[in-house]
Parts: sequence; C-alpha cells; structure tokens
Amino acid sequence: MPNPFHDSIRAVEWSNGALKLLDQRALPRQREHLVIEDTAGTAQAIKDMVVRGAPAIGITAAYGVVLAARACYARSPATWKQDIETDLELLARSRPTAVNLFWALERMRRHAATLGGDPYPALLAEAQRIHEEDIAANRRMGEMGAELIQSPGAVLTHCNTGSLATGGYGTALGVIRAAYAAGRVSQVFADETRPWLQGARLTAWELVEDRIPVTLLCEGAAAHLLKQGGVRWVIVGADRIAANGDTANKIGTYSLAILARHHGVKFMVVAPTSTVDMTLAGGDQIPIEIRADSEVLTHAGHPVAAQGAQAWNPAFDVAPAELIDAIVTERGVILSPTPEKMAVMMGRQD
Amino acid sequence: MPNPFHDSIRAVEWSNGALKLLDQRALPRQREHLVIEDTAGTAQAIKDMVVRGAPAIGITAAYGVVLAARACYARSPATWKQDIETDLELLARSRPTAVNLFWALERMRRHAATLGGDPYPALLAEAQRIHEEDIAANRRMGEMGAELIQSPGAVLTHCNTGSLATGGYGTALGVIRAAYAAGRVSQVFADETRPWLQGARLTAWELVEDRIPVTLLCEGAAAHLLKQGGVRWVIVGADRIAANGDTANKIGTYSLAILARHHGVKFMVVAPTSTVDMTLAGGDQIPIEIRADSEVLTHAGHPVAAQGAQAWNPAFDVAPAELIDAIVTERGVILSPTPEKMAVMMGRQD
Repeated sequence: MPNPFHDSIRAVEWSNGALKLLDQRALPRQREHLVIEDTAGTAQAIKDMVVRGAPAIGITAAYGVVLAARACYARSPATWKQDIETDLELLARSRPTAVNLFWALERMRRHAATLGGDPYPALLAEAQRIHEEDIAANRRMGEMGAELIQSPGAVLTHCNTGSLATGGYGTALGVIRAAYAAGRVSQVFADETRPWLQGARLTAWELVEDRIPVTLLCEGAAAHLLKQGGVRWVIVGADRIAANGDTANKIGTYSLAILARHHGVKFMVVAPTSTVDMTLAGGDQIPIEIRADSEVLTHAGHPVAAQGAQAWNPAFDVAPAELIDAIVTERGVILSPTPEKMAVMMGRQD
Repeated sequence: MPNPFHDSIRAVEWSNGALKLLDQRALPRQREHLVIEDTAGTAQAIKDMVVRGAPAIGITAAYGVVLAARACYARSPATWKQDIETDLELLARSRPTAVNLFWALERMRRHAATLGGDPYPALLAEAQRIHEEDIAANRRMGEMGAELIQSPGAVLTHCNTGSLATGGYGTALGVIRAAYAAGRVSQVFADETRPWLQGARLTAWELVEDRIPVTLLCEGAAAHLLKQGGVRWVIVGADRIAANGDTANKIGTYSLAILARHHGVKFMVVAPTSTVDMTLAGGDQIPIEIRADSEVLTHAGHPVAAQGAQAWNPAFDVAPAELIDAIVTERGVILSPTPEKMAVMMGRQD
C-alpha cells in the first residue's frame, strides 16, 4: 500500500507570517520546529544545518528575503531597497557551495527591484512560487529519472535528497520514489553519509515512512556493494553543477562516481536548474565549504578521537562530468554531459 | 623529540599466568584491561573486539591455547590432547576472516603434538615466540616499507594497524612510524574507519602519543583528498592475503585501492607471512565476516537511524592484486604481486 508520507514532510514552511523550519539536527529522534522571524535567524539556521539540502536552502533564503524586506520597509519605506542589501549579504554568507542560495537571493532581488509600496505581499508570493516550482520540478524529474532505469534492481544513494532537502518530494530521492512506485527499483541502499549521517538519520527515515525498503551502509562498504552486482544505478543530488556538467555534491559523491564507473554501474545526478551555475566553466571553480573538525572528532558532543588529533572536514566534493552518465533537471535529461548539451538545456524554456 | 609510546602499548600480554588484554572498545577514553583465564573468555574477547587486528588476534589465540592446555591437562593428563580440540574449535569460530587466528591455532596444535607431560611451559614459550616474532617482523617490515617511499610527502592509512593491532609497533603503521622517523613521511591522513572508528579512536591515539601529526577524515573524503595531490602512498594492513596477492582487509580498503589507482597514488599492503593463506587461489575465496547491523544503526548504545531501517555491515572487503603496488612481509617486498612472486616469497626461509 502506498503511504505518501513525503507529502506530509515539509522542511521549510511559511506559517503565520513567519518562517518555520523542521530542525533536521534532531531527526529522527525528535520532530521539532524552529520559528524564525528575522534575517539573522535565517542565516544562522542555514549555517547550523537546521535546514540543509541545496533546494531547501534556496527556498529558505527566499523566505529570509521576505522577512528582511518586511523589517526594512517597516523601518524605512523610502530606503528599504538599499537597506536590504546588508541582509542579502548576510544570507549569502551563510553557506558557500549550494548555488541555489545565490540563485534564490538574486531572483528575489530582481523581483524586489520592480516593486513599489509595501513589498511584503509580492515578495511572499514570489518566495512561494519558488517553493511550488521546486516541488513541481521534483515531480517532473522523478518521472524522467525513473524512466532511465531500464532493468529493475537495486539503487544506491548518498546523503539526503528527499522532502527534507527540497521544497518537497526530493531530487534523487524523488527519482527513487517514482521508480519504486513504477516497479523499477526493488531495493534502496543508502550511504550513512558521514560525518552528519544524513543518510542514516534523514534518508532512512523518509524511506521507512514511505514503506520503501532501505538498507544503510557505511561509505567504506560502497565499493564492496557495487562489486556484488545488483545495484543498477547510483543516484545523487547536487549542490552546484558547472557549465560543463561537473557536479559538486555531498562529500563522498566523487568517490561513488569513480567506484560506479569502475564497476560498470550507471551514475545519475538529479537537480533542478536552480542548481546549475553557468558562470563557472568547470567544477574546479566551485567553492568547497570546509566545516568544523568537531563534526568528525566528536559525536553528540562527546569526543571520539584522541585529543591532539586534527580532522579535515570538506563538506562537498566534485564529480567530473566524464563520470556522470545522466543529469536530470526539470527541463530534461542529458546523457554524458558536455558544455554544449548543458548550454542547450539551459537555453530551453520550461 | 622521539617519544616511542608504541613500545609501551601492548594490546596482548601474558601476565601472572593469565591473558591480559587492553580493552580497545573503551579507547581512547579509558585504558582498561581484561584478565582472561579460560578459552571461552578468550573467544568472546576476540568476537567482541576487545582485541582486534589480524596479528593481535593470532597472538591472543595462541595464548588462548595455553589457557586451554593448562585446564585440559589439569582435568585429565591422559586425554588433554584430544580434549583440547573442543577449545581449538571454539577459538576458531570466534572470527572468520583474519587467517592469523587459524595460523596460530595450527602452529600451537602442531607444537602440542610433540609434547609429553605438562604442556604448559612449552606452549607458553611457543605463544611468546609467536608474539616476539610478530614484533620483530613488524620492525623489519617497517624498514623495508619505509624504503619504498622515495619522495617525502603525506600518506593515507585505514583502520588501525599499529601496536594495538599486532604484537607491537604495527604493520602499515609500523611502516609509517619508520618512514616518519626517516623523514620520508611528512603527514599522516587516517580514515576514521566506520563503523567501529578504529582510525579515530585507535590510530589517532597511537600517532598523537608518538607525536606524529595525524589528520582524520571520513572515508567519503578520501577521493577528494587524493585528488589534491600530496598523498604519495595509501598504506594498509591485511586480514588475509590469498596466493595471488588479493588482500582482504577492513571494509573500505577495496575502495581506497580503486581510488588510489584512479589518482596515480601508490598502494602498499603490509602484513607478516602469518597473514598469507596459500591454500586460497584468489580473494573471492576469502570468507567475509558480516557483523551486526547495530554497529551501523546505533552509536554508543543510542539509535541513530530511523526504526525500521536495515543495515549491511560487512567487516572486510578484498583489494585485488592488480590494484596493489607492493606487498611487504617480513620476508621481503613484492612489487605488482602475482601468484609466482607470492610462491617464491613464501618458499623463502626467514
């Protein structure tokens, strides 16, 4: 029996004139929400990973602009369009890699520039359009990505790319949901995804609630899994896709791309075009966030490693286009991405 | 200043007529010992990973045979050689992959067969010889392995292969210690090694205490690290090496072997010949232990993943010989291992 739990999960909501975030740090243990009413709180929530996942970060930032505009306009109706720039910068500094953040800020800024009078209703409507378009894009990508899976079998995914990482439904996890519903996926393997354990804490939770069989593994076991056969596709999301198709995504993705190719397993990237950054020619230009070493050295506040040990904690890596078999966006599917194919797709209208 | 802390760490000791194990489950938080006086306790300690690391498991099993022989002889001096077979089987069932366990049991059984009267002194001497030979082998491998590192730089290691995993000093970590002392290694990167975190808990502790700079990373970050350049060698231990050089080692090793080759980084396996199993033609014949899913689904007794999620927890994988640049044993170095080179080395006398 289908149990579309994903329709009831919303990482980001606008509720009673405020931004409401499901606190993903506490999942699956607790289901708590944070209600945020200002820009600083929005930026901090993104930085602290209350909300994470490139599309969800973009949507959150869009609502953050609504909060900022409301406050700036209330303080000074004459100068709010200049005043809000400080807030936009604060939001832009919250995390560096997911380009959806900058895309959403730019779209909101452009919309704000057209407005006269109280900007609140129009900006809220624009943020809600961004949110709704993301859900629609995910549904579309889910269908197109599922069709790529020709022979039924297992798939492997990394990090969390579901309702929690997006406006709803999911990118890579949306494809997996659609493919499972269509009988094209028999089983989902999910990397636990160190150090933040998005796979164990978030992806497993979403799939269990949707009654899709999920088996977790440590990243170190992925090569051994792929060698067994049975896994047809590795399916991941993206935090930024360069103009040539190189894809930045959660640390460990590059490793999976190499391992998939080594074992003849196909590799699919699923992301809306808001994740594509055509200003960067290649993935080596994508800024990679290095997060605190405490995420590796401690667990739940307790030290794990010996005192004196250091840790290197890059949050993302880049899978080069030549290791990617398919990029799925809401505008279509690109097989074996090249700069030319990317340009054609990005020139295409929705 | 050198600070040979490794000389003071002993995972396994014989003390006051009993087996004394450093409880590695509590490290680095606590330094506790378990005193074990019977076979059942020895087998349980191996199974529960109080002691781990292929050579240390072998040495522990040898002392376990001493405990078994003492008890069997005390119960029945006439039949102890038959009676002890039950104990040998119990020890052999404790863990399936590390062949050093079976090697040590067989060597002790053969020695026992030659004995008349009270077997205790002679078997204790044999177990202590196994222990001392292991330390000597590690020193020898340390020197030979260090010489393979031609240009100074960083190295990456996986799991724990130091004093805690062996009789003392270490296999892969012995090479790293020797190479660091010789100025051939500038920095050590260590995989945290999920799910048991041997890298974070044990390797980092040994290296910090020996004042060798160590930087931990999650397994998912290894490909991104190797892409940066700077890492000259990936250096790992082994749990069982087949007659063609295929090497079973801690889960994640096979992944590293693929990633190293992809980035043009050399891959070295360091293990005493007690880890070589010439009865198996290839790595696909090595039994791979699947451990409890709770090691992945929980942390320190608390659930991490959603209830209902499953986990797949293979403890080892196999790096094929063609991805291995060098195998270092106490009998010498094999470059690009083949069945022929392995046979020549194993035929060689110490």
